[in-house]
Amino acid sequence: MPPLPDDPRLALMLLSSIVEPGDAELDELLGEVGPVEAVGRIWAGEVPERLHRITGAAVACTPDPRRRAESLVSATEECGARVLVPGDPDWPEQLRDLMLVCDVDEPHLRPPRCLWVRGTGGLADSCRRSVAVVGARAASEYGLHLADDLAADLAEAGWTIVSGGACGIDRAAHLGSLARGGPTVAVLASGVERPYPRANCAMFEVVLQRGLLISEWPPGSSPMRHRFLTRNRVIAALAAGTVVVEAGVRSGAGNTARHTAELGRVLMFTPGPVTSSRSVGVHQLARGPWEARLVTRAEEVIEDVTGIGGPMAPPLPKPRRAFDRLTETESRLVEALPRGYVVEDDRLAAAAGVPVATAVETLERLALDGWVEALEGRWRLARGPAR
Amino acid sequence: MPPLPDDPRLALMLLSSIVEPGDAELDELLGEVGPVEAVGRIWAGEVPERLHRITGAAVACTPDPRRRAESLVSATEECGARVLVPGDPDWPEQLRDLMLVCDVDEPHLRPPRCLWVRGTGGLADSCRRSVAVVGARAASEYGLHLADDLAADLAEAGWTIVSGGACGIDRAAHLGSLARGGPTVAVLASGVERPYPRANCAMFEVVLQRGLLISEWPPGSSPMRHRFLTRNRVIAALAAGTVVVEAGVRSGAGNTARHTAELGRVLMFTPGPVTSSRSVGVHQLARGPWEARLVTRAEEVIEDVTGIGGPMAPPLPKPRRAFDRLTETESRLVEALPRGYVVEDDRLAAAAGVPVATAVETLERLALDGWVEALEGRWRLARGPAR
Repeated sequence: MPPLPDDPRLALMLLSSIVEPGDAELDELLGEVGPVEAVGRIWAGEVPERLHRITGAAVACTPDPRRRAESLVSATEECGARVLVPGDPDWPEQLRDLMLVCDVDEPHLRPPRCLWVRGTGGLADSCRRSVAVVGARAASEYGLHLADDLAADLAEAGWTIVSGGACGIDRAAHLGSLARGGPTVAVLASGVERPYPRANCAMFEVVLQRGLLISEWPPGSSPMRHRFLTRNRVIAALAAGTVVVEAGVRSGAGNTARHTAELGRVLMFTPGPVTSSRSVGVHQLARGPWEARLVTRAEEVIEDVTGIGGPMAPPLPKPRRAFDRLTETESRLVEALPRGYVVEDDRLAAAAGVPVATAVETLERLALDGWVEALEGRWRLARGPAR
Repeated sequence: MPPLPDDPRLALMLLSSIVEPGDAELDELLGEVGPVEAVGRIWAGEVPERLHRITGAAVACTPDPRRRAESLVSATEECGARVLVPGDPDWPEQLRDLMLVCDVDEPHLRPPRCLWVRGTGGLADSCRRSVAVVGARAASEYGLHLADDLAADLAEAGWTIVSGGACGIDRAAHLGSLARGGPTVAVLASGVERPYPRANCAMFEVVLQRGLLISEWPPGSSPMRHRFLTRNRVIAALAAGTVVVEAGVRSGAGNTARHTAELGRVLMFTPGPVTSSRSVGVHQLARGPWEARLVTRAEEVIEDVTGIGGPMAPPLPKPRRAFDRLTETESRLVEALPRGYVVEDDRLAAAAGVPVATAVETLERLALDGWVEALEGRWRLARGPAR
């Protein structure tokens, strides 16, 4: 038996390279004997049948765990990444909340045990005030515009955008944040040295300068399909809330939404035309089973994630009308006059609840200002500029 | 003092022609002495100061209440209308719920005391299964299309559409219902003999054949502005729920929405693009203060208004993919293979959680079906028709 790595961090890196995140059996073993001893037992084949089956191929490929660990370290160094494990000062504590939601049926929802991080800034710090913006890859122009705008305004307000680095909505959200100089965190389902998809490689270069690429999988890992679903729980757990911008009927964003709700984070969505297939998924989200808040602008997102005591979204400006300048009596009389009708003094006074004498006097003033016109003791609305 | 009408129905018609609906002081007087005596006291000037001031002009115009009542009766007959008062078999009992929400500050929210009805079918019967569909007059093509569709599908499912007969969303909702032969009820703010607005007169003619025009104001009444707000409470109270389709920041639909929520009816809205000024009002509605349900199709409206025990909206069909036909092991292997990557047997087996021998055997079968391609013992996704 070749010598084992004696550094727990190295052992966790090694384990991340052979067992998928959130494996309950491995986590149990880790809790019992710690990472160094867990590696020893796996390489010695002294683990339960299932774990043995999962790890067998990797152990057979690299019989010397130290060699495997060394190659992981050099791959990590080569791409300028660092490795975080729970307990590190830069480890985001909120990831622990995943322990609350995973259960026997869904062990893959357990917290990550190791994160590769590449880029600028601290991870815990960047995520302290963060919102996830996710959605369809096959997004519409409308959705892309919306994600970009929302992310830009959130960045301007000091919020970090967390997303998945995918094409479509994710990409627009990262770019919106970057355009305002905001940090952004892309949570990957591949190794951080070769972020997936390649189509976004130019964007990932910019992310590295102002934000972070993170992954639970070591450099060299391929973005296998199930990894995207596993990865989604990290997006949901890192951020204070998740905004789903566009999603079809069958969308991965629904998965992130579920994690968000189950973690007690704020689930939000932006509506769209009901005629758009890209919005069908978000509209379904709005109908349950979880509470999902409709948001249309960054201020509303901030109101929702900060909750009671946080800033309220300022009311939308109402169009000002000349009508707003009228006195109470004046506006009652003008309101009582239906367009296209001619009404007598007394009927108008009765309808407006104004004494007849006051009504006549006020109507004469309103006629001078171009609001009404007199027609032989009867009145009608004017079509003048005052209206 | 000229003789009084001795028929309570006639007295209520008369009172409707001189005091606006929901006048708390008049309702109190009616409760004390009944409609015939109330008319007597008003014409004798033996009423509280405020009521005297409101009714003074009308009493002065028509000193003989019986003459005024007669002219109301002939105007009612002339347009083929009938008059309903509380207690009539065709009086919609749900209007009584308005007593629960009106208060000192808003006496105009009290139940109607008299309704003019013109058209085909019973009012109570038509409204037993009814949904209100309301919204902006200045609607977009999108909103009009949506209101029309929703109303048509609701009519097809046996639901009556209640709305306000206005241009825009109201009109589209009435027409959608009529197009499927459904009854529809237009609640007016003018007399039923000359429904407002005139632009919709052709539509009102069709409503008369298959549905009803109703109003709290006698024939000859003009659609004064405050009457629209008063009228909205009747729309909300008649229907099991209200769907707001489009509304600007400053919209009368918000008023109907409030009544709906306060009456304990189901408040619903259809979303739209956040970039559309016509949808700003509905999106605000979605954020409170009342619970408002997002709906995108008639089945969802029906689910929401019938509540627990009612029909659930059928799930939207998910796009079927060839992928769905694969076995569990096959799909795990295909999912584990990221697009654009070439992966070894054993790594792929480990990622998919499948024994290596089974993996190789399955991959060979998948290759025959055009799902994957073998490259010297490594595998990649095929671009063939199977995918």
